[in-house]
Amino acid sequence: MNDDNAAARVIQDLRAAAAGSPPGSRLPTVRELTARHQASPITVSRAIRALAAEGLLDTQPGRGTFVAARAAAAVPAPDLSWQSIALGPRPAGEDAMSALLAVPRPGTIPLSSGYLDEDLQPAATLGAALARAARHPSSWQRGPAEGREDLRAWFARGAGALRAEDFVICPGGQAALSTAFRALAAPGDTVLVESPTYLGALAAARAAGLRVVPVPADNAGVRPDLLAAALGRTGARLFYCQPMFANPHGATLAPGRRERVLAEVRAAGAFLLEDDYARDLAIDADPPPPLVCGDTDGHVVYLRSLTKSAAPGLRVAAIGARGPAGARLRAARVLDDFFVSGPLQQAALDFVTSPAWPRHLRALRAALRTRRDALLDAIRRHLPALDPPSVPRGGLHAWLRLPDGADDVAVTTAAAARHVVVFPGRPWYAAEPDAPHLRLTFAAAPPALLDEGVHRLAQALLD
Amino acid sequence: MNDDNAAARVIQDLRAAAAGSPPGSRLPTVRELTARHQASPITVSRAIRALAAEGLLDTQPGRGTFVAARAAAAVPAPDLSWQSIALGPRPAGEDAMSALLAVPRPGTIPLSSGYLDEDLQPAATLGAALARAARHPSSWQRGPAEGREDLRAWFARGAGALRAEDFVICPGGQAALSTAFRALAAPGDTVLVESPTYLGALAAARAAGLRVVPVPADNAGVRPDLLAAALGRTGARLFYCQPMFANPHGATLAPGRRERVLAEVRAAGAFLLEDDYARDLAIDADPPPPLVCGDTDGHVVYLRSLTKSAAPGLRVAAIGARGPAGARLRAARVLDDFFVSGPLQQAALDFVTSPAWPRHLRALRAALRTRRDALLDAIRRHLPALDPPSVPRGGLHAWLRLPDGADDVAVTTAAAARHVVVFPGRPWYAAEPDAPHLRLTFAAAPPALLDEGVHRLAQALLD
Repeated sequence: MNDDNAAARVIQDLRAAAAGSPPGSRLPTVRELTARHQASPITVSRAIRALAAEGLLDTQPGRGTFVAARAAAAVPAPDLSWQSIALGPRPAGEDAMSALLAVPRPGTIPLSSGYLDEDLQPAATLGAALARAARHPSSWQRGPAEGREDLRAWFARGAGALRAEDFVICPGGQAALSTAFRALAAPGDTVLVESPTYLGALAAARAAGLRVVPVPADNAGVRPDLLAAALGRTGARLFYCQPMFANPHGATLAPGRRERVLAEVRAAGAFLLEDDYARDLAIDADPPPPLVCGDTDGHVVYLRSLTKSAAPGLRVAAIGARGPAGARLRAARVLDDFFVSGPLQQAALDFVTSPAWPRHLRALRAALRTRRDALLDAIRRHLPALDPPSVPRGGLHAWLRLPDGADDVAVTTAAAARHVVVFPGRPWYAAEPDAPHLRLTFAAAPPALLDEGVHRLAQALLD
Repeated sequence: MNDDNAAARVIQDLRAAAAGSPPGSRLPTVRELTARHQASPITVSRAIRALAAEGLLDTQPGRGTFVAARAAAAVPAPDLSWQSIALGPRPAGEDAMSALLAVPRPGTIPLSSGYLDEDLQPAATLGAALARAARHPSSWQRGPAEGREDLRAWFARGAGALRAEDFVICPGGQAALSTAFRALAAPGDTVLVESPTYLGALAAARAAGLRVVPVPADNAGVRPDLLAAALGRTGARLFYCQPMFANPHGATLAPGRRERVLAEVRAAGAFLLEDDYARDLAIDADPPPPLVCGDTDGHVVYLRSLTKSAAPGLRVAAIGARGPAGARLRAARVLDDFFVSGPLQQAALDFVTSPAWPRHLRALRAALRTRRDALLDAIRRHLPALDPPSVPRGGLHAWLRLPDGADDVAVTTAAAARHVVVFPGRPWYAAEPDAPHLRLTFAAAPPALLDEGVHRLAQALLD
């Protein structure tokens, strides 16, 4: 069986090489194929003879093996055009998502990223925790579909009336969002979002077939008067927001607005999906408690992720809700991917309950403060004509307003030509933007690079 | 900050304790709270005073801290009834999924499981691979959203014309299915499924808003004549099947039917979603190549998972398709959970490209053969009056036909009373079952337990 597998691999390899090379091209030698596929020379020779018999290869004893003249002709070009009919119209918003997740090319200055820079990630601690977890045979077993009870209990701390059993562990915050929009609303329903807001949430809501209606936010977070108006006008049963250090605009819902927002949601018989993505990313002061702490009757669905706080590879988040909504979420999560890998759950729990966790958060806060201040300094220095962004008190981003009439997408392109990656403001709006903006990330580069990045951005703005 | 956090933790802890205990209950001492939350005695005392000021606690100097009489009254029972209006009707099929994923209680005989038994999992090898991967700082970084190129190339081997770039790595096969039904069809569309078929696919298709129409399969797999009729009658553009060792019925699509099935799908301008879940679970002979190898024009969407072949915790699968369908899938996967954890991807690649992989597959084949034969023997011995199931040539399950008129769900309940877990046949059908069945898993218990389990099942059938 092992030999059969090896033969299949060699054949696969040679077929691919023959299909991808012009007739007459030399193919790897028996010796090379033997090493590459851990196959015996007999197996390799047999594979070559089989393909020669098919007319795909020419073997020339003493010289080697070559792509046969007819090989190219033997593989007709596939006709995939029928797929357009079968698939129908393409969903919107996917381009922005792939831009969001594109890995910056080496040598570029990343002023756009959703994650902590490598230097800020506790990779050694996480690595040790995962290595320990990996070696527990029990961690490879199937646990409860909703995730480890102890890890859910950790997420339930500080989440108001939510208990461990109200939560389900998810492979990251995006997974939780995608499921939540589908579980808590039906295609054609309206979802309200603060505006601007996280584009991954916009895309997930649209993919769920929802009508996305923006509710403007200002420096004090979403405007309760407009939220009330939108709830009344649309009959929406779901409102998505990031009350703390919102992505991209950085504002935190002001203390005076918190109770009003909850009251409007309550009065409308609606859910508030609280995406508490930046709980561990406070810079200037300890963060306020999440809105869910003020929720008496199960209106707030609460989402928190460790991916932003630790490293992209620690894909562990949790979403919680009381009552039927919680049951609906947990059932939908199971359909979406069963459960999260046991070793990752165990490593996450070990990390957040160890002394390394508060140490990491302290170091992170200091580093984010340094970088945020460096970015704001650089903006004041190199872009003195622009309104300086309001100071983000946490999170990873500053929200830079461009001059009226500027084209944020064109500026992004001009910056890319100068090897600086920024994110345009437009995709963060569910409808027309109020003004052109750029989102500038301060977490993904050290201070000196931030300065150079803004310097080049200033030049790009003159283009 | 640390002290503030500690204070918040102590307050949270005491609030929870007060909410969950009757008035007069004694709460933990200052000393206990100091140790539990790594907080200073001053911080703990301050937290207790704050809650006493709220009227939640009574402090009795020299005696301790107690839940105040008014505390219970201070927390009104939440009113969650409004949620029923906001959420609307409940989706069907969720109960079967939770039964599928329930972890059997200790002491029961598991004749139902979707995964290999602990004894058959290569936990030590996987653990070593993941421990190595965890210690590479780079593996915690963000890689390409579609997954590692080398791992995708591994999945592309033996998958016909599909190349690495046609694949996207997913956190398990269920995630791939859930995304595929949403990406390749729109709510209200019809999807055809072989019948009976994997209930997780039925549930995911229904959750995607699809109309699920069954196409009967027999011992030679799905019937091409009925597939042609169903494609013609419904206009479906998507057909889901497991051509090899289908779950639950175990049949493999006969050689004589493969080309006909592909031809019907081609003629209808439809996609065939090939769920090759049992590629590594062949028992009696090397498996036939997947259908995708005979696909010239991008009709087959190919899904393969490592979770079934290795361990539940190795949540790594891949789904691939050419042309716009592949692009659609990759874009939808990003919306659903961004990307799969780097250390898990690296561990999976290390494992499947190491000499341990073919060794594991050989050992697995031998063990599955022993267990399958033991289960079939036990059925012949203890249930001689029933038609013996046709011999599954791979996979994890046998499909036992019950006498006409038997109630498969009642039998399942009676077996559970005798501490044997089996799965009823009904949830595996998209419509009315042709006959009552049970799905009996041979992979999840050693031979002696299989015999005892079938013995008890025979008794349950007499109940």
